[in-house]
Amino acid sequence: MTLTDQRLDATFTALADPTRRAIVAHLAAGDATVNELAAPFDMSLPGISKHLKVLERCGLISRTRRAQFRPCHLEGEVLGAAVDWIETNRRTWAERFDKLDAHLREIQRDGDDDNG
Amino acid sequence: MTLTDQRLDATFTALADPTRRAIVAHLAAGDATVNELAAPFDMSLPGISKHLKVLERCGLISRTRRAQFRPCHLEGEVLGAAVDWIETNRRTWAERFDKLDAHLREIQRDGDDDNG
Repeated sequence: MTLTDQRLDATFTALADPTRRAIVAHLAAGDATVNELAAPFDMSLPGISKHLKVLERCGLISRTRRAQFRPCHLEGEVLGAAVDWIETNRRTWAERFDKLDAHLREIQRDGDDDNG
Repeated sequence: MTLTDQRLDATFTALADPTRRAIVAHLAAGDATVNELAAPFDMSLPGISKHLKVLERCGLISRTRRAQFRPCHLEGEVLGAAVDWIETNRRTWAERFDKLDAHLREIQRDGDDDNG
């Protein structure tokens, strides 16, 4: 398994949980401490910390060592790699349909010409 | 948990595996049978079928009932929903950096004016 594959595995695993997605969305808007991230959830701090560790392991977030506050920071480039993989394949799929659509229109037009 | 959350959980879980991603990439280029999908992998047909079931459960692929061939088909809209979620958050993150960058340039320019 390549390093890219390992990273994508870890990123998609991290995103496959609603609490972790909510944390990512919160951090997209700005850095935040663990307490700030935990506030909207009915979850213990150790519970939130466990999710943060999953996000940290795949490189989606980083934490500075600034005293006890340690704000969490989103590493947006990691989101970029995940979005690129999906978008490349989604585009290949969409282009196939565009071609099929154009082909069907051509057949339709040829039929109209023959009948007209 | 909302239905959207459940779907995103299932989609990201499905994408968190290199064999399943390779299957999605293959199907993006065109429909294929289980035998065709299994060909590039050193994996038994039941092994591949297990992966196909995960992809089918989250709606990423569908299978027609055409005799024993049953070609698999990629449902690209499901990829679209996943890409939209990531891209929305990636953009929020990127805009924050653009604003910060513009702000820093302004401070720099003001400093240059004062000194000039």
